[in-house]
Amino acid sequence: MSETVEAKEIERPEARERVQDALAEVSALLRKHRLVEGLVHEQLEHAPLGDHMGRGELIESLVTKQNRAQLTRKLDRLHPADIAYILEALPLDERLYIWDMVRAGRDGEILLEVSDAVRESLISSMDTEELVAAAETLDAEEIADLAPDLPQEVMDDVFSGLPLEEREQLRAAMSFEDDMVGALMDFEDLQVRPDVTLEVVLRYLRRFDELPSQTDQLFVVDRDEKLLGILPVNRLIVSEPDTLVASVMQPPVVKLMQHEKAGDAASAFERYDLVSAPVVDTNDKLVGRVTVDEILDFVRERGEEEMLAQAGLREEEDVFASVWKSFQNRWSWLAINLVTAFIASRVIGAFEGSIAKLVALAALMPIVAGIGGNSGNQTITMIVRAVALGQVTREHARKLFRKEIIVAAINGVVWGGVMGVVATLLYKDVMLGLVMVLAMTLNLMLAALMGVLIPMTLLRFERDPAVGSSVLITAVTDSGGFFIFLGLATLILIR
Amino acid sequence: MSETVEAKEIERPEARERVQDALAEVSALLRKHRLVEGLVHEQLEHAPLGDHMGRGELIESLVTKQNRAQLTRKLDRLHPADIAYILEALPLDERLYIWDMVRAGRDGEILLEVSDAVRESLISSMDTEELVAAAETLDAEEIADLAPDLPQEVMDDVFSGLPLEEREQLRAAMSFEDDMVGALMDFEDLQVRPDVTLEVVLRYLRRFDELPSQTDQLFVVDRDEKLLGILPVNRLIVSEPDTLVASVMQPPVVKLMQHEKAGDAASAFERYDLVSAPVVDTNDKLVGRVTVDEILDFVRERGEEEMLAQAGLREEEDVFASVWKSFQNRWSWLAINLVTAFIASRVIGAFEGSIAKLVALAALMPIVAGIGGNSGNQTITMIVRAVALGQVTREHARKLFRKEIIVAAINGVVWGGVMGVVATLLYKDVMLGLVMVLAMTLNLMLAALMGVLIPMTLLRFERDPAVGSSVLITAVTDSGGFFIFLGLATLILIR
Repeated sequence: MSETVEAKEIERPEARERVQDALAEVSALLRKHRLVEGLVHEQLEHAPLGDHMGRGELIESLVTKQNRAQLTRKLDRLHPADIAYILEALPLDERLYIWDMVRAGRDGEILLEVSDAVRESLISSMDTEELVAAAETLDAEEIADLAPDLPQEVMDDVFSGLPLEEREQLRAAMSFEDDMVGALMDFEDLQVRPDVTLEVVLRYLRRFDELPSQTDQLFVVDRDEKLLGILPVNRLIVSEPDTLVASVMQPPVVKLMQHEKAGDAASAFERYDLVSAPVVDTNDKLVGRVTVDEILDFVRERGEEEMLAQAGLREEEDVFASVWKSFQNRWSWLAINLVTAFIASRVIGAFEGSIAKLVALAALMPIVAGIGGNSGNQTITMIVRAVALGQVTREHARKLFRKEIIVAAINGVVWGGVMGVVATLLYKDVMLGLVMVLAMTLNLMLAALMGVLIPMTLLRFERDPAVGSSVLITAVTDSGGFFIFLGLATLILIR
Repeated sequence: MSETVEAKEIERPEARERVQDALAEVSALLRKHRLVEGLVHEQLEHAPLGDHMGRGELIESLVTKQNRAQLTRKLDRLHPADIAYILEALPLDERLYIWDMVRAGRDGEILLEVSDAVRESLISSMDTEELVAAAETLDAEEIADLAPDLPQEVMDDVFSGLPLEEREQLRAAMSFEDDMVGALMDFEDLQVRPDVTLEVVLRYLRRFDELPSQTDQLFVVDRDEKLLGILPVNRLIVSEPDTLVASVMQPPVVKLMQHEKAGDAASAFERYDLVSAPVVDTNDKLVGRVTVDEILDFVRERGEEEMLAQAGLREEEDVFASVWKSFQNRWSWLAINLVTAFIASRVIGAFEGSIAKLVALAALMPIVAGIGGNSGNQTITMIVRAVALGQVTREHARKLFRKEIIVAAINGVVWGGVMGVVATLLYKDVMLGLVMVLAMTLNLMLAALMGVLIPMTLLRFERDPAVGSSVLITAVTDSGGFFIFLGLATLILIR
């Protein structure tokens, strides 16, 4: 709730330009600052940061002091999320410089907002004491979000500093995987009893300075905290104050469980337009709530992860990450692709005799392999999406198979036909053109078959079909394409 | 607001299983139904739908009547979003059968919820009268969402049937592109004046049966509807009733404009954890509001569109779409890739002489091209993401360039080295291995260069870098890879 307390001190101009403008302004102030410092001390840019801060105190002229003050003022007025944005957009040295100027009390909130990669760079610049202080400004479920990035001794300190209830909450929150409802949950659920009047509820609420953010409903529970229903705030407002809670409460639209998949919770939020939802245990006891801001972050992050995974990046990359970090993030994918490419290469190697006799095959074979890969990826993307929505049941699988194979056959005849004519004209060889048509059609059908089979199989083994499918299909259509084309050519053309 | 009215009639079990269960149940009922009908009239499955409904009346036995009633009851209890889900998961004939059984009054809401592709199939099964009736159950901004899929005569009828104010709203809502704030906006903003007490506001609100969904704040406006501030509902609740609105209102966290990009609005919602935000015109006059449910839908849809675009699908595809529809959705991408593959093939063709002399080149060349494409796609994905967040300024571009080139060079030496050794061992030719190392390193560096240049250039020309980048990079690294490898081989190995 810390953000609401500060609401009034924070600048609130229009959304569109504010954060870009703030970034430009901070960058400009930084540059001015460094220019002046640079005049005083030329090699500033190349000095390590710690050093520079030490000397900074000594050499700071009046002008740099002014600049610094201006920068600090600017930062103090910005929303934590905006500071996070600026930190992400700055190269490492400037980033750490700004990070050092941010008021210590806000470190925690800002660490929550930055991307994982940038968070790592910020945390590694802080000592244990600073980290513990930052963590202590946060709620239990927020600390749990940071926990994977914090050193063990920091977590130990934080843990022992928490009151008993929050310690339990932290332990609970940390026990869930990122993609479980438990990881999105917070504990700011307001509870009321069914046998009181709305007047009493209102009086209870007026004791708060502010309600927890995203509070659109109160949860009605019995003595054992069993969830009986929900009381939407908007209902509370429009109803007569002397009504009993029990008579206006509603059944909850959804009840989430901590071990459910976060993706399913996100679908429920999207489907039923929720702002918050209760989380219960197996005995229907209320344990917390999930709010739409967490869901929105989750949906966005998952979308990004899928994009990254498809391109073979292990995780979100700090654009200004070191060369070594980038290499680590990317090498495994390249290695896998190298292995599949090597297999394809060996398939070609097996037909070297044919290629030596008819060199045109070498020029045409990448076309056959390429179209198979593209078409297979189309099929997979469509199937993965439908499977993710749970809309492909086993009984419809046969229907789908048939359709994909037919589409592939049509594509094969059309595009294979085009390339067949081109090959015939180029190499003045009708049989070569015919082999081209046949090979393209067969490889497209292979792509369709595997495009359905691969995600279905990964799913059967409970693997995420979004991740591995693309490598697998390309491996199959490359090696398969070369084999089909060169094999047919050897049979038909080479004697 | 129609969904809230029905809240009480609708089943509300747990989120996790409800919609999957409902789908299974409906499918089972359908199958039972058809089995019985099938016994009575064998070729039912193959009869066109209209026919079958006509005869259905005559042949329906007691059992089928019972089944039908059971199915209708089940459907009536389901949330519109859940019915939409079920319709999407059924093959066309079963889908239309169910669609026919849904109560006419709910057609509008359900059409809003289904995917574009499935919506098309449903709309084409309805006549003008049914469509007009369906549209008339919706709000102006909801009709605007359906408008692109509705026949012109339906829109004309709907338009002339609307009261003046809604007609204006519909006209306004239809004038925006899908990715503008105006397209996400609704008109259910509650307005209050600054010079009244909270007591008066509460009395005003009690006149409603329910507040519009996702109402977390009221908008404070002056006589000319100029936005002065916001009054959070939670603030209204915790403050004393005799306070003036002016003394508890806050500046709005953001003010959106109708012509802003929806993506920027989504970022603002994500960054500041909003539930709703006011939309104003250039004179600061309040024209509507955007709510987080629309934002959540937008973020999800955009994420999906990017996935589809990357795989070369023009639009979301109905899994049960006809072969012809699927072909249309996919052909353009295949055609583009065929052209780029053909160019690469001609590059190889230019070196046929070298290949004839050293057939090993044909087997090794796809490895060089492949790793370039993969590595280039990694770079592009990272850059596109950073650019989308607005975090890559021109001044940092040089820094990025240098880093990507260095990472590429390291990858080239490492993986090129591996393949160089493998090639040397396989073909007993050290020089061939050396050519392999050189070619892979150069192609990886070309990929890095283009991986930064392509999205930056597309951006300069205000094109979406997410869409075209992947084809372009693969085209460059394929043709470039073949050219570099075969060229080097010709220079060094072939005499």
